[in-house]
Amino acid sequence: MSSTPSRRLNIDNVNPHVREAKYAVRGELAVRSEEYRVKLARGDTDLPFKEVISANIGNPQQLDQKPITFIRQVLSLVENPKLLEHEDVLLNQLGYKTDVIARAKWLLSKIGSVGAYSASNGAPAIRQSVADFLERRDGFPANQADIYLSGGASSGVNTLLHVICEGPKTGILVPIPQYPLYTASLSVLNATCVPYYLDETKNWATDLSAIKKACADAKAEGVDVRAIVIINPGNPTGASLSEEDVCSVIKFASEEGLVLMADEVYQTNVFSGEFHSFKKGLRLLQKENPGKYDHVELASLHSVSKGMVGECGHRGGFFEVCGFDPKVQAEIYKFVSITLCAPVIAQCCVELMVNPPQPGEPSFELYDKEYNGIYNGLKERAYALWRAFEKMEGVECGEPQGSMYLFPTINLPAKAIEAAKAEGRSPDEFYCLKMLEATGVCVVPGNGFGQHEGTFHFRTTFLAPGTEWVGSIISFHENFMKEYR
Amino acid sequence: MSSTPSRRLNIDNVNPHVREAKYAVRGELAVRSEEYRVKLARGDTDLPFKEVISANIGNPQQLDQKPITFIRQVLSLVENPKLLEHEDVLLNQLGYKTDVIARAKWLLSKIGSVGAYSASNGAPAIRQSVADFLERRDGFPANQADIYLSGGASSGVNTLLHVICEGPKTGILVPIPQYPLYTASLSVLNATCVPYYLDETKNWATDLSAIKKACADAKAEGVDVRAIVIINPGNPTGASLSEEDVCSVIKFASEEGLVLMADEVYQTNVFSGEFHSFKKGLRLLQKENPGKYDHVELASLHSVSKGMVGECGHRGGFFEVCGFDPKVQAEIYKFVSITLCAPVIAQCCVELMVNPPQPGEPSFELYDKEYNGIYNGLKERAYALWRAFEKMEGVECGEPQGSMYLFPTINLPAKAIEAAKAEGRSPDEFYCLKMLEATGVCVVPGNGFGQHEGTFHFRTTFLAPGTEWVGSIISFHENFMKEYR
Repeated sequence: MSSTPSRRLNIDNVNPHVREAKYAVRGELAVRSEEYRVKLARGDTDLPFKEVISANIGNPQQLDQKPITFIRQVLSLVENPKLLEHEDVLLNQLGYKTDVIARAKWLLSKIGSVGAYSASNGAPAIRQSVADFLERRDGFPANQADIYLSGGASSGVNTLLHVICEGPKTGILVPIPQYPLYTASLSVLNATCVPYYLDETKNWATDLSAIKKACADAKAEGVDVRAIVIINPGNPTGASLSEEDVCSVIKFASEEGLVLMADEVYQTNVFSGEFHSFKKGLRLLQKENPGKYDHVELASLHSVSKGMVGECGHRGGFFEVCGFDPKVQAEIYKFVSITLCAPVIAQCCVELMVNPPQPGEPSFELYDKEYNGIYNGLKERAYALWRAFEKMEGVECGEPQGSMYLFPTINLPAKAIEAAKAEGRSPDEFYCLKMLEATGVCVVPGNGFGQHEGTFHFRTTFLAPGTEWVGSIISFHENFMKEYR
Repeated sequence: MSSTPSRRLNIDNVNPHVREAKYAVRGELAVRSEEYRVKLARGDTDLPFKEVISANIGNPQQLDQKPITFIRQVLSLVENPKLLEHEDVLLNQLGYKTDVIARAKWLLSKIGSVGAYSASNGAPAIRQSVADFLERRDGFPANQADIYLSGGASSGVNTLLHVICEGPKTGILVPIPQYPLYTASLSVLNATCVPYYLDETKNWATDLSAIKKACADAKAEGVDVRAIVIINPGNPTGASLSEEDVCSVIKFASEEGLVLMADEVYQTNVFSGEFHSFKKGLRLLQKENPGKYDHVELASLHSVSKGMVGECGHRGGFFEVCGFDPKVQAEIYKFVSITLCAPVIAQCCVELMVNPPQPGEPSFELYDKEYNGIYNGLKERAYALWRAFEKMEGVECGEPQGSMYLFPTINLPAKAIEAAKAEGRSPDEFYCLKMLEATGVCVVPGNGFGQHEGTFHFRTTFLAPGTEWVGSIISFHENFMKEYR
């Protein structure tokens, strides 16, 4: 008698590198919060809150952020070019401006149809627009052939890590705390993550001595450290690098022969100081020291997902490479070819982000008002949340700097740490789960981003409107401390 | 004196698995054809043709295929929901129908904004729509929890192979000729491709004895063969499996413990016979043999890229899994979470594909006319091209069956094979390059898909309108044979 056949795939024989990957931003708490949302939607009243607040993910338009009118008007026309047969209706009855119509016509003349594949690295005209933007931003030339349009920055990171990582011994320096895309992708690729810690005592500044030590230690263990990731402004920390810090990191990368990967998706979410791009830093160093930095390889990434554009659902982004060997670029091209091209409507969205209406153009006034409104709203909410944290016992949080997140330390009492242990959870996970159960606010435990042993944090976005949810966190925290103090 | 520092990355130290991957559909010939296109666009007159025809890639809307009005109207409204404040203008002046408006409102009520991330596996309401479609198509239930919306089918294949492949010894049976996504993805993943040959003498039918032999041979070499890919209808061959063939493959997979991966993206591009889904085949077998096939795991893929929808630039698709272990599904969910979600506007496009206007609804008449017009146009062109091949010396091609391609054999004279060798090219590559240089028509050599040793083919789409380009292939072939006969 033969045994009953069983399934071929089980948790023990799937790809071990996928199994080992962790991605807490959409992990257990996020899944639980979706269950609560379903319960509330069907009218259940047994939860102690009326609304789920997804503060676990930088998803601006899921919360309060409205899309920018100019962008959506153009996209509606490239989706349905037949509307362009009715210019008078668009202009006189639907609030479209002449520059919206002109941009849609221009895009369509370059891409043909948003329903057609583009070149694997993106539509040439859109890559040229990106190059022009980078040139304006940095004051140095950019070449469209070095630009790759991607499905969000995540897909760009995936491409770059795929090409860079030669094998299990390849090491990539990754800041801790970090956005878990990096550790998860390195796990899937079976390469080595070499963590370097940001300096919490200096509001999460990039600490060159920590990078040097991490790099040297890894090399001593036989790791082929070949790239360094910098998230600037930081996720989850919001910290922006000064021009000096940017240049020190480039100098270090130059000495050590490291490829620079600058994740600059929060470049417009800066509340204190200003954004300094790695591209500009590199070109300045090259200008001041002829020949000395010509061998430095930099890949910098940007996206339509964050900032005032906030169009993450469209999955648009790009990266630029500087100093790469043409044969390596050919490998990048081949790799992106395998999945054909980034969504073409998302490529259009990238174009609209990098080439917005200018003063004097018909759409400028509304665009400018919307853009500044979003910026100021984010800043206000960041400070409101920060002030709330300032008042909470055992919670420490630096002043908001940038990105869409705050990443406070929570000093948890011993009793809470024990209770967590009894449940088989890390203390920060335990705290965040209790918060979700009590308030419906979903945040991400610090261990999803990495933190020093024995310290506990959580990451929360400050995207949600209103103050009620902030109040609910305050009262939850008071009750939690009462119970476990 | 220290040596000049050099770049860190070069062709010899990048990821060897990326380096070894081949993807001919967008390879050298495609790049060359783009150069010709640029030359023609700037007015150069030294080429022997006036137009480049991209017959290398199934990109319907780059050529003649027009988008379906219903789809694009709805998408324009979800991109710019403010248009919904002007229903009278939409209805009375812009040709929108009430069902277009209703659908856009419904989608927006479910997804919020297309600028927001959805759940990692796709918006629940859209997954439900897909499940309803599968249920109507197959006559068996489908569960939205088993459906994953993806960025085109390519991204779905990437996800599935990532989870299934445990290591270098994992073998996946892949039909030859095949769409190179499979071999390229397996190369990048460093897993083993186990080729099985389709039977050209039976118009590229799936030959179970060839599958059995390939599987047994690989197992004998220590390969852990754990999945079989079936492309139905075939790419590049167009061959559709009969219901009997579908069931034989399922039975074999059941006996051998193989996961079935059914690539069904051409399911509506069928000109002879009809499409039989693997899902239906599996459920029928399960119904007729209670308990016997319950352990079979099937993943089937579909996309908005092909068929009469042809919206490949949007990068929308989905896959359904049947019989998978919930813990394995959790790994799939985690993997797709790392890149957040498929483009939300593409998810909407999937919804519109699976849930088109029905008879009696306001948009039906136009939709039906457009859909049938595209179908009939493709069929006519396929036959026109086939008839041309029939007349060409040394060219053999089966009658068109499905997909968007013909894959003729070319019997190349010895002199041509020598000339190719002298240039360091395979004979089919040599032939296709000569065709491109003479006619501007870009096709893909058979070696990009795989073919029996010593046989030569090329793949061409039959998407391009008109007959002039077909005529130019005929005269090129005559001249080629004159020169090398």
